[in-house]
Amino acid sequence: MAEQKATNVHWHEGDITTQDRNKLLGHKGATLWFTGLSGSGKSTVAVALEGVLHDMGYLSYRLDGDNVRLGINKNLGFSAEDRTENIRRIGEISKLFVDAGVIALSSFISPYRADRDTVRELHDQAGMDFIEVFVDVPLEVAEDRDPKGLYKKARAGEIKGFTGIDDPYESPLNPEIVLNSATMSLEEEVILLIDMLRERGILPASE
Amino acid sequence: MAEQKATNVHWHEGDITTQDRNKLLGHKGATLWFTGLSGSGKSTVAVALEGVLHDMGYLSYRLDGDNVRLGINKNLGFSAEDRTENIRRIGEISKLFVDAGVIALSSFISPYRADRDTVRELHDQAGMDFIEVFVDVPLEVAEDRDPKGLYKKARAGEIKGFTGIDDPYESPLNPEIVLNSATMSLEEEVILLIDMLRERGILPASE
Repeated sequence: MAEQKATNVHWHEGDITTQDRNKLLGHKGATLWFTGLSGSGKSTVAVALEGVLHDMGYLSYRLDGDNVRLGINKNLGFSAEDRTENIRRIGEISKLFVDAGVIALSSFISPYRADRDTVRELHDQAGMDFIEVFVDVPLEVAEDRDPKGLYKKARAGEIKGFTGIDDPYESPLNPEIVLNSATMSLEEEVILLIDMLRERGILPASE
Repeated sequence: MAEQKATNVHWHEGDITTQDRNKLLGHKGATLWFTGLSGSGKSTVAVALEGVLHDMGYLSYRLDGDNVRLGINKNLGFSAEDRTENIRRIGEISKLFVDAGVIALSSFISPYRADRDTVRELHDQAGMDFIEVFVDVPLEVAEDRDPKGLYKKARAGEIKGFTGIDDPYESPLNPEIVLNSATMSLEEEVILLIDMLRERGILPASE
């Protein structure tokens, strides 16, 4: 045996539950699922919300194309089948984060209603909060912003199957919340989300 | 606009980084990868470690067959190809948790050296701590325990490709730590792990 230094180790009875982790963190876990066109402002509001939550002392984590498409889902393409598997996996990862007590901010175009409903169902079955945040701006607005130049390429035929151009975006029928970054300020959007998280008991009530 | 109640929202400049989350949680994230035969005691020590970490105020999360094989990896079987993809995905998920600031306790037989080395490499490339914990007991001990009755079924030919019986277990060559649940008490194992986490700066030094 190596020398033992950790003398102040206390034994814990029973497994750690989600509720235990919620108590440790001071809030519940939940999935906020940001859906909308490319350029609608999904990531912008998710980043802003993450910053505000952090400064309030709450733990959130953003899942997006940067850390998912380039990591766990790097073996998936953009066929309908792969898009569906992409969203399914992200839904399952979101659930793991909720189970860990984290507020998962999942930001993906996720254009197909059936795929989003699958993720909702996965959460419902596990008794987990799933909050669909529809970031709703007119196509013209998103295309005019075109932050990554993707609409231009899609219009030129250089990208095939681009959501809003030659592939459909199926709007949520009953999203928990709708944000419109064309008419609302970023601060207004974040305040709406924080209020909603408090009303649902995911964050503690405001002092 | 709905009535705004969240009046005490403060704006955060810049994206939240892993370091920001580490500061919030009071520790660093890391992956502890428990590998060993079925019945070696991987899950037992992971559960015990999770309890002790929780009572110290630290956030860990266990990834295991229950929440991974039945969730994100439910579309994978036990062929060599699927086993490799299983471990790759778990490695990527572990990285997401480390990025979120969480101590990931990943407990899987993970019998192939190449697969574990792939996960190590993924962490190294991202500058993340990967700690291979070899839970090393003789096959006879694990088979004698047989907590799920799987060795019996494998010996009877009812399960094919069972690690240790008719599929190899490739021992780690340079694991960060070796635990032997046949000769060490559970408390000794946990204390070794806590000491190691402190020495590596993942947990703050003991007061």
